[in-house]
Amino acid sequence: MKEGIIKPKTLPGFMELLPNEQILFNKMKDIIRKSYEKYGFLPLNTPIVESADVLLAKAGGETEKQIYRFQKGDNDLALRFDLTVPLAKYVTQYYDKLSFPFKRYQIGKVYRGEKAQRGRYREFYQCDIDIIGDGKLSIINDAEMPLVIYNTFKELGFDDFTICINNRKILNGLFASLELKNEATEILRIIDKIEKIGAIRVKEELLKIAKENQVETIMKFLNIQGDNNSIIKQLEEMKITDETFSEGLSELKEVVKFITLFEVPEKNLKIDLTIARGLDYYTGTVYETFLNKYKNLGSVCSGGRYDNLAQYYTDRKMPGVGISIGLTRLFFLLTDNNIITMQNQSISDVLIISMGNEYDVCAKIASKLRQNDLKVQLNIEEQKLGKKFKYADKINVKYVITIGENEVENEVLTLKNMDTGEQKTVKIEEAVKIIKGE
Amino acid sequence: MKEGIIKPKTLPGFMELLPNEQILFNKMKDIIRKSYEKYGFLPLNTPIVESADVLLAKAGGETEKQIYRFQKGDNDLALRFDLTVPLAKYVTQYYDKLSFPFKRYQIGKVYRGEKAQRGRYREFYQCDIDIIGDGKLSIINDAEMPLVIYNTFKELGFDDFTICINNRKILNGLFASLELKNEATEILRIIDKIEKIGAIRVKEELLKIAKENQVETIMKFLNIQGDNNSIIKQLEEMKITDETFSEGLSELKEVVKFITLFEVPEKNLKIDLTIARGLDYYTGTVYETFLNKYKNLGSVCSGGRYDNLAQYYTDRKMPGVGISIGLTRLFFLLTDNNIITMQNQSISDVLIISMGNEYDVCAKIASKLRQNDLKVQLNIEEQKLGKKFKYADKINVKYVITIGENEVENEVLTLKNMDTGEQKTVKIEEAVKIIKGE
Repeated sequence: MKEGIIKPKTLPGFMELLPNEQILFNKMKDIIRKSYEKYGFLPLNTPIVESADVLLAKAGGETEKQIYRFQKGDNDLALRFDLTVPLAKYVTQYYDKLSFPFKRYQIGKVYRGEKAQRGRYREFYQCDIDIIGDGKLSIINDAEMPLVIYNTFKELGFDDFTICINNRKILNGLFASLELKNEATEILRIIDKIEKIGAIRVKEELLKIAKENQVETIMKFLNIQGDNNSIIKQLEEMKITDETFSEGLSELKEVVKFITLFEVPEKNLKIDLTIARGLDYYTGTVYETFLNKYKNLGSVCSGGRYDNLAQYYTDRKMPGVGISIGLTRLFFLLTDNNIITMQNQSISDVLIISMGNEYDVCAKIASKLRQNDLKVQLNIEEQKLGKKFKYADKINVKYVITIGENEVENEVLTLKNMDTGEQKTVKIEEAVKIIKGE
Repeated sequence: MKEGIIKPKTLPGFMELLPNEQILFNKMKDIIRKSYEKYGFLPLNTPIVESADVLLAKAGGETEKQIYRFQKGDNDLALRFDLTVPLAKYVTQYYDKLSFPFKRYQIGKVYRGEKAQRGRYREFYQCDIDIIGDGKLSIINDAEMPLVIYNTFKELGFDDFTICINNRKILNGLFASLELKNEATEILRIIDKIEKIGAIRVKEELLKIAKENQVETIMKFLNIQGDNNSIIKQLEEMKITDETFSEGLSELKEVVKFITLFEVPEKNLKIDLTIARGLDYYTGTVYETFLNKYKNLGSVCSGGRYDNLAQYYTDRKMPGVGISIGLTRLFFLLTDNNIITMQNQSISDVLIISMGNEYDVCAKIASKLRQNDLKVQLNIEEQKLGKKFKYADKINVKYVITIGENEVENEVLTLKNMDTGEQKTVKIEEAVKIIKGE
């Protein structure tokens, strides 16, 4: 290497894909976007760089340590670490110009300076939807979230997945009725681990902070099983008189009712009373989504209801409900576990190759095919034919047209199906039909 | 305001749009992407944050001052300031896994800490395509660029635009033949201003650095007019024997020939011998694109041929040709000059409104309409009817369905066309047909 040459490298924790991977990634991103738009969520695209005081209004502890924060001139800046804080900023800033309930989606990169390790990213896509109310927001919106999740994962090609829902008020009400309000945070933290450590160890841990009869009730609660209506019935039969509990149960009933009206199949939607989702932020309905065959991958789409989106920017009360898909992590999990593969990802319908210097004819054929709405690539380089076909392989194109002296003379073209190896000499009109699959 | 509340604000120079503006912006972005993909350019999505030494390998002077550069832990980081440097890094880093000529597009945000002023952005979208050769790259690729520009601007809805092309070798060869090689940079700088200051002042300025007979030849050259073939003929008739000049002329002829084979109309493509495009980077064909009615806005799509993409990362010679659309600036210019307007931008086909508490029926109708592939929004809040219709106005939706007691009883719905004000009571099947425009 000559002097002054710098080794090209990408930072650890920053996903950078090869073209065929990127095509697949973009397909997934497009499907998510289309699904979000189908339900009337409006697009938003806020800056990646914001004033640090705005972005960090709410942050603290772990979050603040992970922030990419820096000075430029007199400005104290930071890269956004989620899409929720920018949303809170946005709805407060443009309040007068928006109409509520405000439904928005945002698909964009966020930044967290976490410890770099396999499958953990410092730059990653979040795909969020939220519905924000002005003062209040109907509980029916909480039923729309699972509908959108359901549609999105179906469109992504999944069938065997479960959206788990719960309501934080049920948990909070339960603890209040047991006079364990002060221990609620700790109990939730323990319950949250039930999938990992099992019921017996959860019970052991609970007994360290609660009396036996209290733990009995909690375990009874955690053991509630059955279909959604049966679970609701069993919750009613617990006869817990706490007001928060009742409110949560009635909300859950309403949400399940509307999810059914929205025709989300019960096999894809289950009440799961162990789900708590974070400790402070969510106040009502909570969601997690699992690919049933790959439950160990964790939730691939989570969210919930919150009371107050923008309390750091305004006195106005803005309740909301939202979900988020961490697309970068999801893509990594799916490809790393061979759940999806990169095969046959192509951007073009056909590649035209010149055998010799039949460049003019190739250009004319390209024009003609493009007029027929085909996605056409030309390879008209001075390269060996083998190299040109290797190129065709690399871009995964299904059809290759070759033009040589013979084709020029007879005004035909040779069309090769790269999947089957079949090769035909045809007129251009016929080639169009074959490529279009007509 | 209560204590601790922070004023929500967006940094100057960072574009943040309202939803109806964002819908239009996204439409433009989608059109550009689709057009780029049509011609076989592969998608790339490199990180926004890179190692500063990699990103700044080539930079210096003005560029370096504008960079957002910062430390995180031990890492010296920077935000990308264009999409060309990341491309150079990418093709070197993944050289073995790519197939050449490597065609890629990238549409993404880049960052420059310029002085904030109206219409100047610090965060803005660039939409780039490039074709990179390994060692060499056919001149026919230079003809594909105007084809893609032509298709893109047609698809964006423009008709009256001109893609101007030139070849730097013609200019360089001319100066060499006049023995003005050392003055070339200065002469190009002066010529570049011809649109702004006019031919007379250009001549005056040239006379300060060149002799009268030299300036005569340059002015004769700049006065060459006519259609493309006529310009080429006049260039030939200048009988300039310089080798670089001949090479440039022969390249220009070849490019014009293939642009014609690609069926780009001559009214949209003109040779413009005054175009030089920057001073160092481009080495052959150069492009600028103007909206003819708004030529004062400057070029809306520019680019050119370069000899050596990645010289700071590799010894390997990688010539390329590319163009770039500055979408954020273009969007600002188009909206600020009322060339495009935000009217009738909607994400949804229909909004369903409950008159009272007919929530169940509204949910069922939403499901039914969604099964018919319609984009449906529900407004089932406890809001006054007037507020709900104001919401319909804000989201620009064309059809509104209202459901009240009467509709529930008779199993019909009331469908209003918001454009015409026309209102009908119909069965759901008929509503589907009307909304779909069948």
